[in-house]
Amino acid sequence: MTDPSKQSKEDQLIAKYFRPLAKDPGALGLLDDAAKITPPAGHDLVVTADMAVAGVHFFADDPADSIAKKALRVNLSDLAAKGAEPLGALLSVSLPENTGEDWLAKFARGLGDDSKTYECPLLGGDTTRTPALLTVSITAIGAVPTGKMVKRSGAKAGDLIVVSGTIGDAALGLKLRRDPVNAAFASLPPAQRGHLLDRYLLPRPRLPLIDQLRRHAHAALDISDGLAGDVSKMASVSGVRAVIESKRVPLSDAARAALEKEPKLLTTILTGGDDYEIAFAIAEDSLKPLQAAAKEEGIDITMIGRMDAGEGIEVRDFQGAPLELPSLSFSHF
Amino acid sequence: MTDPSKQSKEDQLIAKYFRPLAKDPGALGLLDDAAKITPPAGHDLVVTADMAVAGVHFFADDPADSIAKKALRVNLSDLAAKGAEPLGALLSVSLPENTGEDWLAKFARGLGDDSKTYECPLLGGDTTRTPALLTVSITAIGAVPTGKMVKRSGAKAGDLIVVSGTIGDAALGLKLRRDPVNAAFASLPPAQRGHLLDRYLLPRPRLPLIDQLRRHAHAALDISDGLAGDVSKMASVSGVRAVIESKRVPLSDAARAALEKEPKLLTTILTGGDDYEIAFAIAEDSLKPLQAAAKEEGIDITMIGRMDAGEGIEVRDFQGAPLELPSLSFSHF
Repeated sequence: MTDPSKQSKEDQLIAKYFRPLAKDPGALGLLDDAAKITPPAGHDLVVTADMAVAGVHFFADDPADSIAKKALRVNLSDLAAKGAEPLGALLSVSLPENTGEDWLAKFARGLGDDSKTYECPLLGGDTTRTPALLTVSITAIGAVPTGKMVKRSGAKAGDLIVVSGTIGDAALGLKLRRDPVNAAFASLPPAQRGHLLDRYLLPRPRLPLIDQLRRHAHAALDISDGLAGDVSKMASVSGVRAVIESKRVPLSDAARAALEKEPKLLTTILTGGDDYEIAFAIAEDSLKPLQAAAKEEGIDITMIGRMDAGEGIEVRDFQGAPLELPSLSFSHF
Repeated sequence: MTDPSKQSKEDQLIAKYFRPLAKDPGALGLLDDAAKITPPAGHDLVVTADMAVAGVHFFADDPADSIAKKALRVNLSDLAAKGAEPLGALLSVSLPENTGEDWLAKFARGLGDDSKTYECPLLGGDTTRTPALLTVSITAIGAVPTGKMVKRSGAKAGDLIVVSGTIGDAALGLKLRRDPVNAAFASLPPAQRGHLLDRYLLPRPRLPLIDQLRRHAHAALDISDGLAGDVSKMASVSGVRAVIESKRVPLSDAARAALEKEPKLLTTILTGGDDYEIAFAIAEDSLKPLQAAAKEEGIDITMIGRMDAGEGIEVRDFQGAPLELPSLSFSHF
């Protein structure tokens, strides 16, 4: 053995907090330069990367475990939307100089819990220091039967646009977090406020839908930047026009209550992002079997509009009139 | 088409600067949630991730193209050390708010040039903003014939320890950069100073060696944290003892000249890191064929010591006496 006192602090932190999460043989105990993946026969790999910066994608004082979970889950959400089953993830994290070991232990625990829940082992990565802000960069790798990756392109005129779960909760949760005395939220019961806050902190990657997506989806994406903007991207790369009817967009009780107090929140709901639900385009006769199968996984699927011939996107308000949105998506830029 | 004025700034930047680098069909034009990789039949995938933070891994005022190149090359160096051929890379980058488009254009140009040079297409990633420091996180994916990944473990007692290229140049370049009036460097001719500075800015991933590594290496790693520390890691996971003879460690003319001025720089050379050369353990009779084959690629291979039965590492000074090193590796922590 090397004299452990000569092991670098970085190696000590990796050994103590991350090695226990890296039990997959391909991770090589985080003791090598790289991880090894033996691709499952007859499969394509699907690879996605997302970076999260303190103060931009999460609050620096969010619980360390939820920061880790969110960073992993936004990547798993991308895999889910592509119909891919997780094989593993690589974590690169830059830790501010004052990061305590308690914080790191909690961060690693959150990552470890989700890594088990979603069967996505830690395969490798990089731990470094930063004089500035915590930055978490995750790359997730999944597998899909060869040729079966669900793309954003592929939606056809006549397809129904459907979404999983409810829309707008996370964006409202962020608004509530920033402006807790806002009248739209002040009168909500604590459980409803809690629901919105929780959905901002912890996305629910829709991995239970991957079989159904492969079976039914002509096109799909995960809703990260805002429903309107993301569906418009799907329509654009598919060469069709999207029509979304606001009255069909599924809302949680909390979102509905907030919207009743403040109708302007409709914009936040439709364009705020951070939903990490899946929007997909399906043939009309797929709707019922898809809904039934998703229901068995405890996930609601709701039809919110249609793809037509043409281009662009039209979002209709509750009365069916065209809704003017200041922008279609949230952007940090 | 979506009204382009409603395309987010992030999407505009990606379209303008990164999409032109993402011509591989698996990148899907950076227009999807994820990239697709069809693994080459009969191969394992090798995956590595490295994060680089301004002020920690590079100087914030380094040329934008060299920042991009270094971030990619340190990952390619890991692939090379594992005997893996690059398939592609994902780039996640957080840009400070004052990042100009000139800077971004130069960064993308550097990435694009290296992506061509090393045949490593950009497959995907994430572009975000940060209120703090530029952070670049790259994940590189390579392929190696099934079961042929060269690991850190596997070195045997009796093996020779060999390295590619020369050692210490980048660490001396960093020292020179930080302390340009240091007497050890002040008298070096400009070309030698330039050599050291350049080797800090731009690693040379040893991809031309991958066939030879697969053929001859019992174990290998890339030297990123310092020769002594990295070889000691290889010895540790292989269950052997490493002996390195300083007099055999290959030095550039510039490093030799600096060392003559200031003998204490031997520590920097042996433990400073950022070499991105490959250290590997081979059987004695592999040395000559390996050197001959590497020579054809323009790369020198030098024997610097041996693996013995036992544990730990012994570094000998120029007279053959044990050298006490304050620490074996550079660590940012």
